[in-house]
Amino acid sequence: MAMTAATPRTKTEDDITNEVLRRFDATSDPRLRQIMQSLVTHLHAFVRDVALTEAEWMAGIEFLTATGHKSTGNRQEFILLSDTLGVSALVNILASHPTESTTPSLLGPFFRENAPMLKTGDTIAPRDKGEAIEMVGKVTDKAGKPIAGALIDIWQTGSDGLYDIQGDKPEVMDLRGRFLTEKDGTYRIRTALPIGYGIPMDGPVGKMLTAGSREGRRPAHVHFLVKAQGYEPLITHVFLEGDQCLTSDAVFGVKDELVSRVEGHDEAVMADGKRASGPWHVMTYDFQMKPGTGVVPQPLLSAAE
Amino acid sequence: MAMTAATPRTKTEDDITNEVLRRFDATSDPRLRQIMQSLVTHLHAFVRDVALTEAEWMAGIEFLTATGHKSTGNRQEFILLSDTLGVSALVNILASHPTESTTPSLLGPFFRENAPMLKTGDTIAPRDKGEAIEMVGKVTDKAGKPIAGALIDIWQTGSDGLYDIQGDKPEVMDLRGRFLTEKDGTYRIRTALPIGYGIPMDGPVGKMLTAGSREGRRPAHVHFLVKAQGYEPLITHVFLEGDQCLTSDAVFGVKDELVSRVEGHDEAVMADGKRASGPWHVMTYDFQMKPGTGVVPQPLLSAAE
Repeated sequence: MAMTAATPRTKTEDDITNEVLRRFDATSDPRLRQIMQSLVTHLHAFVRDVALTEAEWMAGIEFLTATGHKSTGNRQEFILLSDTLGVSALVNILASHPTESTTPSLLGPFFRENAPMLKTGDTIAPRDKGEAIEMVGKVTDKAGKPIAGALIDIWQTGSDGLYDIQGDKPEVMDLRGRFLTEKDGTYRIRTALPIGYGIPMDGPVGKMLTAGSREGRRPAHVHFLVKAQGYEPLITHVFLEGDQCLTSDAVFGVKDELVSRVEGHDEAVMADGKRASGPWHVMTYDFQMKPGTGVVPQPLLSAAE
Repeated sequence: MAMTAATPRTKTEDDITNEVLRRFDATSDPRLRQIMQSLVTHLHAFVRDVALTEAEWMAGIEFLTATGHKSTGNRQEFILLSDTLGVSALVNILASHPTESTTPSLLGPFFRENAPMLKTGDTIAPRDKGEAIEMVGKVTDKAGKPIAGALIDIWQTGSDGLYDIQGDKPEVMDLRGRFLTEKDGTYRIRTALPIGYGIPMDGPVGKMLTAGSREGRRPAHVHFLVKAQGYEPLITHVFLEGDQCLTSDAVFGVKDELVSRVEGHDEAVMADGKRASGPWHVMTYDFQMKPGTGVVPQPLLSAAE
């Protein structure tokens, strides 16, 4: 073994962070360098701030590992973690331009590509026994000019509070569909009245929420992804007015302007001329699109599958 | 659906963090509340600081998920991530009391409980073809009073740079053992000369280091866990003077006082009276213990298995 003089540095609490930052100085991608150095700075500040003990650090390692192991196939526990810590909502707000389009909201983990193409007035919930609701509205640009042929992707939970991929036939697409707007920009979709539901509480994130005396409820909502040639894709939720959980959404997705009025009806014939089988509802919501490239960021789509 | 008045709040970049913090207010364990609220504060500050995009956020989700999936059985990729971001070293420094005992260092992911009980002078590397080294020294309290019967757990890589559980017979314990100090507090252990080695680079953490133009090298070292009745367990490394990587340890574990001189020899008979088969070495290192409970934090041990 060579006996050259070594100059190791004593690592104190104060200089360890600088040493880690220095190691990322040679990162060739300047954006990656910025992200890693900021991450190290804030992560170390957190550890110092609470004087994290070795046992607590190990509990954190075990929590992250369990979160990774719970993320398989139809379940993404790290997205749920990000959602429940408000990180997803913050990223979403930073990316949004509310003055230029309808306010976006989270994509969530339940989007699926290639949902069935349906026609104006069709139902996306043919097997659901819940009360019926018609969702109607118009897709326009910010000035109100109708956008014909916009592709509306819509998905939601059934009356049991579950998305299709959470049920017993995850391979069958249900409670979702794609619609094209008419020449005047309007859409009309029949479905089952969405209800509030609980996020999955049987994993590490559920344990974290329980330890924090937090609830895992989400208010009733419908997901929309609207695409049109020459416009930025719009990913958002529309929430149903009156839900008890609008102020306590477990994933912080609610924004005032995304809450829609819902009219209750009990006439024998519904607005679309079909016979009602019980009380029915109408939700009206218009979408405003921002000019752009029309391309959905690929990582968002691939991860949602 | 009830039409009660809802009071959802518009979530702006500025108030989303406050809303998430408020949700943890009811956490019954005050320490958990402190940790979660500090974590949310610093995590959100990071997201804001770099204005994290949705695509970058998704890359982060995918990175964490891959890190979780890589953590199975004999491999803990989240510990490696913590190590390479300097978080483990920072936690270690915060927990250490260098004026009261030998400086601690990281446990690392390769400790195994119940290594073979050996006798003074025995080798822990009976099958290794590397150059021989004798490790000798004394376990005392801070005042220099010898501690007899202290239990020394020692583990290291072989001449191939691999720990036993990384080789082709992970079920067989090798390159590790347990020794009791003599009445005068001394220990004497034969082994193979440790060499520097690379941390596993074939997982997400390796990709991160490569993207950051960072090396995954660790300088040559030996792990020690010393336990004695009435003293705090001491977890540390001893590094071998002269290693090229002492100033660039990938996991930031080197401290000046943990670097030991190594004497080179070429006499035909080694210090312990046995015949040498080639050049041999002697490393001398004394350990000082801090009075305490003698209990190793359980999470540390359970996670290392």
